[in-house]
Amino acid sequence: MRLGMIGLGRMGANLVRRLVDGGHECVVYDHNTEAVAALAAEPNTTGVASLTELAAELSGPRVVWVMVPAGDITTGVIEELAGVLAAGDIVIDGGNSYYRDDIKHAKILSDKGIRLLDCGTSGGVWGRERGYCLMIGGDRPAFDQAEPIFATVAPGVDAAPRTPGRAGEISQAENGYLYCGPTGAGHFVKMVHNGIEYGMMASIAEGLNILHHADIGTHNQQGDAETAPLANPEFYRYDIDVAQVAEVWRRGSVIGSWLLDLTAGALQKSPDLEEFAGRVSDSGEGRWTVIAAIDEGVPAPVLTTALYSRFDSRQLFAFGAKVLSAMRKQFGGHDEKPG
Amino acid sequence: MRLGMIGLGRMGANLVRRLVDGGHECVVYDHNTEAVAALAAEPNTTGVASLTELAAELSGPRVVWVMVPAGDITTGVIEELAGVLAAGDIVIDGGNSYYRDDIKHAKILSDKGIRLLDCGTSGGVWGRERGYCLMIGGDRPAFDQAEPIFATVAPGVDAAPRTPGRAGEISQAENGYLYCGPTGAGHFVKMVHNGIEYGMMASIAEGLNILHHADIGTHNQQGDAETAPLANPEFYRYDIDVAQVAEVWRRGSVIGSWLLDLTAGALQKSPDLEEFAGRVSDSGEGRWTVIAAIDEGVPAPVLTTALYSRFDSRQLFAFGAKVLSAMRKQFGGHDEKPG
Amino acid sequence: MRLGMIGLGRMGANLVRRLVDGGHECVVYDHNTEAVAALAAEPNTTGVASLTELAAELSGPRVVWVMVPAGDITTGVIEELAGVLAAGDIVIDGGNSYYRDDIKHAKILSDKGIRLLDCGTSGGVWGRERGYCLMIGGDRPAFDQAEPIFATVAPGVDAAPRTPGRAGEISQAENGYLYCGPTGAGHFVKMVHNGIEYGMMASIAEGLNILHHADIGTHNQQGDAETAPLANPEFYRYDIDVAQVAEVWRRGSVIGSWLLDLTAGALQKSPDLEEFAGRVSDSGEGRWTVIAAIDEGVPAPVLTTALYSRFDSRQLFAFGAKVLSAMRKQFGGHDEKPG
Amino acid sequence: MRLGMIGLGRMGANLVRRLVDGGHECVVYDHNTEAVAALAAEPNTTGVASLTELAAELSGPRVVWVMVPAGDITTGVIEELAGVLAAGDIVIDGGNSYYRDDIKHAKILSDKGIRLLDCGTSGGVWGRERGYCLMIGGDRPAFDQAEPIFATVAPGVDAAPRTPGRAGEISQAENGYLYCGPTGAGHFVKMVHNGIEYGMMASIAEGLNILHHADIGTHNQQGDAETAPLANPEFYRYDIDVAQVAEVWRRGSVIGSWLLDLTAGALQKSPDLEEFAGRVSDSGEGRWTVIAAIDEGVPAPVLTTALYSRFDSRQLFAFGAKVLSAMRKQFGGHDEKPG
Repeated sequence: MRLGMIGLGRMGANLVRRLVDGGHECVVYDHNTEAVAALAAEPNTTGVASLTELAAELSGPRVVWVMVPAGDITTGVIEELAGVLAAGDIVIDGGNSYYRDDIKHAKILSDKGIRLLDCGTSGGVWGRERGYCLMIGGDRPAFDQAEPIFATVAPGVDAAPRTPGRAGEISQAENGYLYCGPTGAGHFVKMVHNGIEYGMMASIAEGLNILHHADIGTHNQQGDAETAPLANPEFYRYDIDVAQVAEVWRRGSVIGSWLLDLTAGALQKSPDLEEFAGRVSDSGEGRWTVIAAIDEGVPAPVLTTALYSRFDSRQLFAFGAKVLSAMRKQFGGHDEKPG
Repeated sequence: MRLGMIGLGRMGANLVRRLVDGGHECVVYDHNTEAVAALAAEPNTTGVASLTELAAELSGPRVVWVMVPAGDITTGVIEELAGVLAAGDIVIDGGNSYYRDDIKHAKILSDKGIRLLDCGTSGGVWGRERGYCLMIGGDRPAFDQAEPIFATVAPGVDAAPRTPGRAGEISQAENGYLYCGPTGAGHFVKMVHNGIEYGMMASIAEGLNILHHADIGTHNQQGDAETAPLANPEFYRYDIDVAQVAEVWRRGSVIGSWLLDLTAGALQKSPDLEEFAGRVSDSGEGRWTVIAAIDEGVPAPVLTTALYSRFDSRQLFAFGAKVLSAMRKQFGGHDEKPG
Repeated sequence: MRLGMIGLGRMGANLVRRLVDGGHECVVYDHNTEAVAALAAEPNTTGVASLTELAAELSGPRVVWVMVPAGDITTGVIEELAGVLAAGDIVIDGGNSYYRDDIKHAKILSDKGIRLLDCGTSGGVWGRERGYCLMIGGDRPAFDQAEPIFATVAPGVDAAPRTPGRAGEISQAENGYLYCGPTGAGHFVKMVHNGIEYGMMASIAEGLNILHHADIGTHNQQGDAETAPLANPEFYRYDIDVAQVAEVWRRGSVIGSWLLDLTAGALQKSPDLEEFAGRVSDSGEGRWTVIAAIDEGVPAPVLTTALYSRFDSRQLFAFGAKVLSAMRKQFGGHDEKPG
Repeated sequence: MRLGMIGLGRMGANLVRRLVDGGHECVVYDHNTEAVAALAAEPNTTGVASLTELAAELSGPRVVWVMVPAGDITTGVIEELAGVLAAGDIVIDGGNSYYRDDIKHAKILSDKGIRLLDCGTSGGVWGRERGYCLMIGGDRPAFDQAEPIFATVAPGVDAAPRTPGRAGEISQAENGYLYCGPTGAGHFVKMVHNGIEYGMMASIAEGLNILHHADIGTHNQQGDAETAPLANPEFYRYDIDVAQVAEVWRRGSVIGSWLLDLTAGALQKSPDLEEFAGRVSDSGEGRWTVIAAIDEGVPAPVLTTALYSRFDSRQLFAFGAKVLSAMRKQFGGHDEKPG
């Protein structure tokens, strides 16, 4: 197929390349004209200077993939597309939009007869090579029309052994893409995916942190009336090579996972990770997952705690911690220990 | 009664004064001879220079209250007392000993016929005036003999209105002291008391921290592809006077509590608490409470989370946070944001 | 003052009585005409059959206190009041409205020149006697006009000793009511108050649960390859009288609090609480507090965990728990243990 | 090599088969004589009826792998082996022993000159086919002598692509086994591995539970003064096919993992998992991991919360939840809602 791609950052550019490798043609646009020029130099890729031009380069029903930052920027592109596309056209939002925004965006587009597919896209910087896992919501007939695109972008069934019990024809999900339901369903599933990601990442990080401190009994530890001494120093005399542990867990263990593979890679390069300060960002989906859990009234303590670890890493409890120290001073006369 | 007091720090010295005010006589010892001399200048208080001398100043069955730091120091005193006291004597450990150590200490003493009472003592620097809440374990007849001491040290029934439904004779618990069971039971209950204390403190601190940040929508907030922007700035434009809020909650609210009183006092003195760095110590009982929950197989997520907040405040997740940043860099190419 | 009260449930009726006791006159309305008739039989209380009638019974600037369930019902009353009141009048929403709804309600009213005060009201069924703690937001001049009402409803300074360091004139906060800021500020502070309440309640409940299970070492415990045996049965042989412990903590301890008083009262009546099933409801503020923490990007793990405990108590993780059992079966061949 | 295997359960029997497939000979013992007879019918496998006989069938330095339940049973076997083996022999404890027990066991054996290797073994029922991930501690020369055994049992380097940056000779860790340090180090690392496993499992389970409830807006939801109504029913109208979602995430997504593969398998067989009650066992390592975190003073909120979810699934907070309901009844007059 011939389709448009708006947004040529890390994700967008690699999607174009994977699509072209898979036999599609791409008309590409970015507000950064250099990015357009660079990508347009590759085969079967046409650069354009505006969305109007992009619309003109495609024929109906047009398919346009939007891959720009979520929030106001995505909304702006959707509004502009509502002006240049025509009834029957299809817009795919492959970014990290909040699923509630999808509902607003679908309305803007459907007023013109244009159909929105919200497409959660996982795979990060490795997606060009590994393929992207796609979770799609929106208009079902539009999905069916655009399916060849998703089939190309997704990893395909060979990326993992078949699940025992599955037989016969390969399903969508086994190819690495899935129609999840009406507008927002794709980004809803992607949101929860990222919530799980936060929890799995924190699980690994907490475990490695415990191993990293397993030699604490060999340090000089002194308690006093206000500080808990190390309970059993004789049990904490291990000098664990955390990088080697991450590596050994990659084969045969229950916690084998892509995140562990990446962790092993990072520790292989830099066993003490001294190039990181440990200020961990969060990009929205973890927060939205927690809000969904609370709205639904279901507990998600692990995912929530993982999110809060990130807030903590950015010192966002500083005032609260001062309140705790102030209370201890009040009732016990305890001064803070120096750092 | 005439009794001995070992350890004349903040807690021990005030216990002596409260006991003397209540009509008892105290023989006092500390390894710091100046502390002994200072207290011995007060009425009905005799200073001694050794535990042998202390034993000689008391007549059987002797009662000796030990108020020294938990751990090795308490064990040392117990061992020394086993050498100078006689069968039938009573040792009260009023410090923050781990209840499992009580079992060891009781054995050391009972080999000589000496009886141990483990006595969890709550009240902090305010106890002389308010009285101390006492949770006592150990030999029941020894408790009965020492009860007049506990009755004096405790706040007495007037410290709070009677619980609806309680009538007739005032019980031990209503006077502010309680025999909880065999050796260790007193410190076990005190341990859980402190675990609850951690949870209540963290509840107040988290709530005030949320209020402190309620004006976040008035600050310039900029998200990008890797950072969640503030979702609804229009809902976070409140400049809350946290000190006044703590004060208003003291009267009539559901969360009225002594900890809130102290918080209001601290914020009254220093609304921004800038004299604190927010490095919150923990003194053992919180940890032991969690270990008890885990051994029992019962969930204690709130108390545990409160404990972990303190560890976090001391930057003890630093390596784990770096692991998280390293993973994000690996899969998403995300660089850390500057602080 | 003469004011209107809409909503004569537990809270509204008691507010009327406290106001009348304090020298005010009340015009009362409820959709339940029996409730109106009953209350109108009390002194200085006039019953009406409609909001129009209520408006007619008051003279400008009228003050009307709304005490009905939050959400659609409150919005309905606000809309109706916008039709019957006049410019300059004051509406006090004393219910548990979400502070974001206040902003909508204030708009509905201000279009007619009517002013809204949002008033978080804490005190529960005990408020008539103890007074209510009031957290107020909205139009400042309206607050100043209505202040005599708040002063009567609040507990007054004598409800607690003055905070050390406070001297001179008694402040609003010390009287138990506080103007917190523009529209929504009052319910925002009340929301966080309830979030803290959840955390403090859970702290007490978890601690008492640990005490309740302190005899687990006396039960027959059998581990197998898939079940952790009790680690140290010798340390868990205490048969703690939880009701007495709650009582003893009421005097002199660090965790003394109104919630503990109430807990002691409940356990005094029913030490095993067998009349409760342990299905704990939540009424919105705990959820909103967590959402505020997440929007602000500040960690609130204790308050959140306390909320999730309630969800858990209603079996809302059932499917997730099945997923866990299913995974264990898959990788370890572990069958579930019978209950 | 020719080695002994004690314990022919699921794990032990499959280890024997994998060892024999890899060219070793096994002398096998179990207290269940039928298990011995069955396995001894397989090639290069000799059954024996006692540990004395087992010792006689091997020549020095003997190597004996113990694969029996952790705790008293393992200790019993270790003690018996101390009586029948000789100086220089090697015992491998491949079970789930607590690393602190290893230290006791090593002492029992070293008094006779026998050396202990503690070997954490991950892989579950799939290990015969996939190989087992091995984390080994203890005497280093003993490890070097036994290494051919570990090399056979482990998955080997081909089980996963090499980590980028690793080149040259294949390391131990890349083959799937690792010498981690002195006695206990292997089981310490395995313990933390299982702690991480709990966290990852809970992350997936919580996420799927949120998806499972994503249609809550289509149910009739009624709030009242004591129950939070569903905030935004229009955002929760998705009927997600959870089994398909688990499948699609297996390819290309960030959360791809063996646990997800197993989850997809379980949901493929039984989308509603109705054969499970959701009572999730725990087998010790999760608890020990948390105790290690607390002893070290490092936060592990995600791993701990995951553990508590399991306790909760077994209704171990029942009394605490009743306390919460009792408090609500006390301060708000709230009755429990029926289930």
